[in-house]
Amino acid sequence: MNYTFSSGMSSLKPSVIREILKNSGNTIPLSAGNPAPDAFPVDEVREIAARVLRDEPILALQYGVTEGYAPLIEELIKLAHERYGVGGDDDSLIVVSGAQQTMNLMSQIFINNGDTVITEEPAFIGALNCFRGFGAKLSGVPLEADGMDIGILEEKLKTEKNVRFIYTIPNFQNPAGITTSLEKRKQIYELAEKYGVIILEDNPYGDLRVSGESVPSIKSFDKAGIVVYSGSFSKIISPGMRVGFTLAPKEIISKMTVAKQTQDVHTTMLTQLIVYEWLKEGRIDAHVKKICDIYRRKLNLMCDNMDLLLSDYLTYNRPEGGLFVWAKLNEGINMLDYVKRASANGVSAVPGNAFLVDMSSPCDHIRLNFSTPSDEGIVEGINLLAKTAKEMKG
Amino acid sequence: MNYTFSSGMSSLKPSVIREILKNSGNTIPLSAGNPAPDAFPVDEVREIAARVLRDEPILALQYGVTEGYAPLIEELIKLAHERYGVGGDDDSLIVVSGAQQTMNLMSQIFINNGDTVITEEPAFIGALNCFRGFGAKLSGVPLEADGMDIGILEEKLKTEKNVRFIYTIPNFQNPAGITTSLEKRKQIYELAEKYGVIILEDNPYGDLRVSGESVPSIKSFDKAGIVVYSGSFSKIISPGMRVGFTLAPKEIISKMTVAKQTQDVHTTMLTQLIVYEWLKEGRIDAHVKKICDIYRRKLNLMCDNMDLLLSDYLTYNRPEGGLFVWAKLNEGINMLDYVKRASANGVSAVPGNAFLVDMSSPCDHIRLNFSTPSDEGIVEGINLLAKTAKEMKG
Repeated sequence: MNYTFSSGMSSLKPSVIREILKNSGNTIPLSAGNPAPDAFPVDEVREIAARVLRDEPILALQYGVTEGYAPLIEELIKLAHERYGVGGDDDSLIVVSGAQQTMNLMSQIFINNGDTVITEEPAFIGALNCFRGFGAKLSGVPLEADGMDIGILEEKLKTEKNVRFIYTIPNFQNPAGITTSLEKRKQIYELAEKYGVIILEDNPYGDLRVSGESVPSIKSFDKAGIVVYSGSFSKIISPGMRVGFTLAPKEIISKMTVAKQTQDVHTTMLTQLIVYEWLKEGRIDAHVKKICDIYRRKLNLMCDNMDLLLSDYLTYNRPEGGLFVWAKLNEGINMLDYVKRASANGVSAVPGNAFLVDMSSPCDHIRLNFSTPSDEGIVEGINLLAKTAKEMKG
Repeated sequence: MNYTFSSGMSSLKPSVIREILKNSGNTIPLSAGNPAPDAFPVDEVREIAARVLRDEPILALQYGVTEGYAPLIEELIKLAHERYGVGGDDDSLIVVSGAQQTMNLMSQIFINNGDTVITEEPAFIGALNCFRGFGAKLSGVPLEADGMDIGILEEKLKTEKNVRFIYTIPNFQNPAGITTSLEKRKQIYELAEKYGVIILEDNPYGDLRVSGESVPSIKSFDKAGIVVYSGSFSKIISPGMRVGFTLAPKEIISKMTVAKQTQDVHTTMLTQLIVYEWLKEGRIDAHVKKICDIYRRKLNLMCDNMDLLLSDYLTYNRPEGGLFVWAKLNEGINMLDYVKRASANGVSAVPGNAFLVDMSSPCDHIRLNFSTPSDEGIVEGINLLAKTAKEMKG
C-alpha cells in the first residue's frame, strides 16, 4: 500500500546527527551529545530505586496523574523558585517525559500548519524537527557572540505572519555554546511583550556552568505571562530516565496537560519517584558541583588542544559551560568535505548545516562535543581533526 | 495575555472520566480503569530493577535510541509472533511510552486537520481525544454484540472524505466489553483493504481473557500492509512504567520513529530494561495466568452481584475478559441523573456519553470497572448502585 502521511510529517527526515552517529561506527564520537557516564549519580539512583520499590511499589507501578507526581511538582516549584529564580503566582508546573516533550507539547497546543516559529540560528535540531513536524515555518535569527541579533529579531516580529513563539536556549546554546547576555535577554523579553509573542526558554544546560557568572533567566522577568520555561534532568541526573518539567502561565500548563494526556498519559512513575527522592534529599548542589568539575576538565582539555593544534584551521569562542564547542572552519576548508574526511580518519563531528532552518544552506561550522568521549578520546579526536585539516590544506 | 491555541487543541477538554475521578473523592471507584494492585509483579520488578541498576547502570541511565532497546525489540518481535500471531517480514516494531503514544504517533503521522478517523462507537476516550487534538473528524460505527455494524462501516468507508484509519479494540473493548467475532474481524480487514484504509488495532486487554476462546487478531490476516497493531504492558506488568509497542509495516514504523524522536526521544530506559529482563526470563505465561484468576474472580463477583441486585434496572452482556462492564439502564432511569445520584450515594460510574463521538448525544449506558476496587468495594458498589436505582424508580 502507498501510505499518505500528514503534511507536517511527510517531509520530515530523521535527525542528521542521528544518521551520522549510526554511520560513525568506531570513530571517536565528537559528534554526540550524551552526558559523560561518570556524571551519573549511579550509586544514589540505585539506592533510591531500591528504596522506592521496597516502600512504595504500587505507587511506582500504578497509573499516575498527567500533571506529574504531586510531591515532585511541589519540589520542582521550590527548585524553580530557589535555584532558577522562576515561577510566580500565575504560573503552574507540569512534569514531562524529558524536555523534548515540552517542545512537542508547545507545538501541539500552539502551531497550526503554516504558522511561524522564530528561532535562534543555528539551533537545537530536536526542537527544529519537532516544530517542522507540526508544519511550522521556521524563521531564523542569527546568533551573535552574546545572543540573537536583536535588530533582525524585531524585523521578524514585525513582518512574519502568525508567529506563535520565539525559541531560545539562553545558556550554553546547542550548538553554538553561546550564553545570551543579560541585556539581550531583557531586550528579547521586551520585544516579545511588545509584539504579543510567547517565548519558549529552553534551559537544559544551565547548571553546567564551568566559568563566568550565571545570568538571570528570561522567565525571571516575566510579569506579562509570556514565557514558557523548560527544565530538564537529562544533563543533571540522567537522560535515560526521561524526566523534565515545564513552568509556564497556568492556562498554558492546563492546555499542555490535556495534550500530554493524549500523548503518554503521564511520565514514568518510577523515574519521577527517583527524581523526587533525590531532590528532596538535597543532593543537587553537591552533584552539580561534581559534574561541573568533570565538564570543566573536559571542556578545557578539548579547547586547550584545539588552541594548540587547530588554530591555523578554525576559530571558536570558548564556551562558559554546556556540552558543545561550535567552530568555524577557515576559508579554503570545505565543511562537508572536512567532516567526511575526518570521519574516514576516525573522528566524527556534526556538520553545522544540521542546525540551520534551511539545512541546504552553505555553512562553515562544525559542532564538537566533549562530554561523550573519554579524556583520551578528546585528545585523540582533536589530533585527528588537526591531521584532517593538514591533509586538506596540503 | 490572551493565548491563541491551535485549532485542534482549542476545543479539546480534559477527559470527562478524569474530571469525574477528581471529584469522586471518597466514593467507591467503579469509574476507574486501573489494573488491580495485586496484579502487579512487584517482587519480580523489584528484583530485576536492582539487578539492572547493579549490572548495567549506564545503559539504564544514558540516552537510548528512539526505536527502543534493541534486545527488547527482538524479544517483542518474538512475543508478537509466538503469543499474538502477528508480524511478518514486511513489518517492524517500535517501543513506545505506553499504547497511548501509539495513538498519538498515528495521529501525528497521518492526520491533517479535518481528516476523518472511523471509530467504533462507543470507544476509548483517550484515543478519541488524541484524534480530536489533531483536528480529526470522528465518524462512529455502532458496536453490536459481536463488533462493529459492518453495513454502516462500509457506508462510512464509501462516503466519508479523507479517511485516514479505522480505530478498533477487538478484544474486550473499552468501554463496551465486547469481543469482535472472527467473522467480523475478517470483514473489517477486507473492507479496509477494498477501500485502501489503514486499521489501527489496539489490543491493551487481549491477555486478560477469563472465559471463552481467543480470537485471531486482525493483524494476523495482514498481507496488504494495512494493519497497525498496538500492544501494551500496562495491564500485564504495570501502567506506571509506560512501556508498550507498535508493530506495523516498516514504512509506517519508520515515520513513527521520526515522530517519536521529536516527542520524547525514546522511552525510559530503566523500564524498558525491566520489561526486557522480565520477558526474557519467560515470566509472562505464569503471570498472565495469575492475573486472569484475579480478574475472573472480580469480573464474576461484579456480574453475579449485578444479576442479583440490578436486573430490574439495567441490562448488560457479561464480558469474556478485560476490565469493564457496559450496562444499559432501563427506560425511565435518566443516565446522567443516575450517575450523579450514585455519586452522592457513594459510588462512581462513568456516564456512557463520555465514550461517544459527540459527547452531547443522549446515552443510556454507564461503564463499570471491576479491577480498581477491592472485592468488598465491588459488592458495596453494586449495592449502592441498586439502592440508587431503587430510589429513582420509587
